[in-house]
Amino acid sequence: MSAIKTTLFTLSNAQVVIEAVATIAFALSGLLEAARKRLDAVGICVVAGLAAFGGGTLRDVLLDRRPFFWVEHALWLWALLALCIGAMLFMRSRHLAVTERAMQWPDAIGLGLFTAGGTQIALDMQQPAVVAVLMGVITAVFGGVLRDIVCNEIPSAFRDHRPYAICSFAGAWVTVAAQQLELSHSIGLVLAAGTATLLRAAALWTGYTLPSWQAGGPER
Amino acid sequence: MSAIKTTLFTLSNAQVVIEAVATIAFALSGLLEAARKRLDAVGICVVAGLAAFGGGTLRDVLLDRRPFFWVEHALWLWALLALCIGAMLFMRSRHLAVTERAMQWPDAIGLGLFTAGGTQIALDMQQPAVVAVLMGVITAVFGGVLRDIVCNEIPSAFRDHRPYAICSFAGAWVTVAAQQLELSHSIGLVLAAGTATLLRAAALWTGYTLPSWQAGGPER
Amino acid sequence: MSAIKTTLFTLSNAQVVIEAVATIAFALSGLLEAARKRLDAVGICVVAGLAAFGGGTLRDVLLDRRPFFWVEHALWLWALLALCIGAMLFMRSRHLAVTERAMQWPDAIGLGLFTAGGTQIALDMQQPAVVAVLMGVITAVFGGVLRDIVCNEIPSAFRDHRPYAICSFAGAWVTVAAQQLELSHSIGLVLAAGTATLLRAAALWTGYTLPSWQAGGPER
Repeated sequence: MSAIKTTLFTLSNAQVVIEAVATIAFALSGLLEAARKRLDAVGICVVAGLAAFGGGTLRDVLLDRRPFFWVEHALWLWALLALCIGAMLFMRSRHLAVTERAMQWPDAIGLGLFTAGGTQIALDMQQPAVVAVLMGVITAVFGGVLRDIVCNEIPSAFRDHRPYAICSFAGAWVTVAAQQLELSHSIGLVLAAGTATLLRAAALWTGYTLPSWQAGGPER
Repeated sequence: MSAIKTTLFTLSNAQVVIEAVATIAFALSGLLEAARKRLDAVGICVVAGLAAFGGGTLRDVLLDRRPFFWVEHALWLWALLALCIGAMLFMRSRHLAVTERAMQWPDAIGLGLFTAGGTQIALDMQQPAVVAVLMGVITAVFGGVLRDIVCNEIPSAFRDHRPYAICSFAGAWVTVAAQQLELSHSIGLVLAAGTATLLRAAALWTGYTLPSWQAGGPER
Repeated sequence: MSAIKTTLFTLSNAQVVIEAVATIAFALSGLLEAARKRLDAVGICVVAGLAAFGGGTLRDVLLDRRPFFWVEHALWLWALLALCIGAMLFMRSRHLAVTERAMQWPDAIGLGLFTAGGTQIALDMQQPAVVAVLMGVITAVFGGVLRDIVCNEIPSAFRDHRPYAICSFAGAWVTVAAQQLELSHSIGLVLAAGTATLLRAAALWTGYTLPSWQAGGPER
């Protein structure tokens, strides 16, 4: 009995740690882009916050769901502020490219976790499967989209031809399938997050790019 | 009796067909802009979806109204996906300019229908007349605005000096007037949508442009 | 008794006038940016409206609070339209720079008032202190952010290195402190708005800039 409790506690602790790492990876992606664009301290904090919490917040606005994650766990706002101030104090130019490359893997984990979590939330609210999948993708991808829009870039998720949202899309359908097969929430979460993360990792390893559309025509 | 039913059925069928054509025209406007900006397959689907459903969704968020059109009729999300994949498979560069010109007319119909529908929804929720008009314009115009923002352009509705939102504005006031005069919903819809569509068509035919503001000054 | 009533009436009138001046300053900031970007008449009205009402509307969407200010006081939409049409008729190029400089002071007042009001609204809804502060900053700053995003600029609040959002942040904490000290709403409002406004005014007078982040690296 006690052994089970300890295992559950360890598992739940592990999940909290993994989620924290993934959220920090998302925040750092915003911080790096803001630094690259030479934003000031305010801009860095806002863009990091948008990258970390923007996707989930947009999902909750669309689903009319409250409280937001960062309202329920307001401590995270302080953690974000501390992260940004720490980065501004201790990061140097030569750290930027290194950090970006190092962040690819926790970012892939975040892609999986946010997808599975977002899809499950929508399914629990009895949304149709395709809508739940869309909500999972929005949770995982639209933080980065908002980050890029504020930084005056076309969102990289929409134009870099490397599978990102597609991996999230596949993972979201695994969540739906797990629900149909009546698997437990935690098994469904692991399968779905694993699918999205591994697909993304495979895309990074192999350098695979989406087939380009031939009909491009001249850019305006 | 049976003749009336048949007529009503035909009318309601006609409305569904017209609405579908208008929505597809809006989606294609997003698809074409995404192709011009050389977005990847994910970007093309997202921008097409924003152009088609973004205006109505923003209206519903502002009015705190659920479910969204694309949640209630989730089949449309599949239709959108099929449209985008079909376009990516079959459209060639030389089709782009042709499609854009051909879309002007269904787009004008969409402008009218979305305006009248959006205004009516707000009036049914007892919003003040000027707010209902604003909601009609947002429904018709802000899909294109979101499309342009994601594609990193100043929204064309705000800068091309050709009447677009203004036609929608006029049509929305016709909806309000029809409500005041206690005309039936369907007559009001036809009058309002017709006004906006015909004004837009007249603007396209005559090449009329809004008077430019003399105070421009040098662009930053 | 009558003297007290007169005083209260005068005070409340003074508040209405100050709020109106501040809102108009925000609207003019949008109008000027739209004119600089050579938007058409529709774009000028939309961008002015976003700058004036966008921050409060975003706060209300996040807090799930209705009706919006501009729905409850729909007369303001007419006032905004009149302001834009008047500016288009009577402003000339040479007025633009003058107006921009003259608007700095009412804009600082708006920063203070919007911050204090937005924070108080969130506190009244039992939000945690840090969330209420964030809502105050969003109310004061995100109108300008939306204005800049629509005009295809990186938001100036995030990149011009002059204290703006930070002044709002400080003022918002004063509102929280006033609530903790159980000061009356109006005293808290005056203290908080005064703090943000005076800090902003001091920043403008001294030309102080936020310390730049050394880690910038080359801009993409």
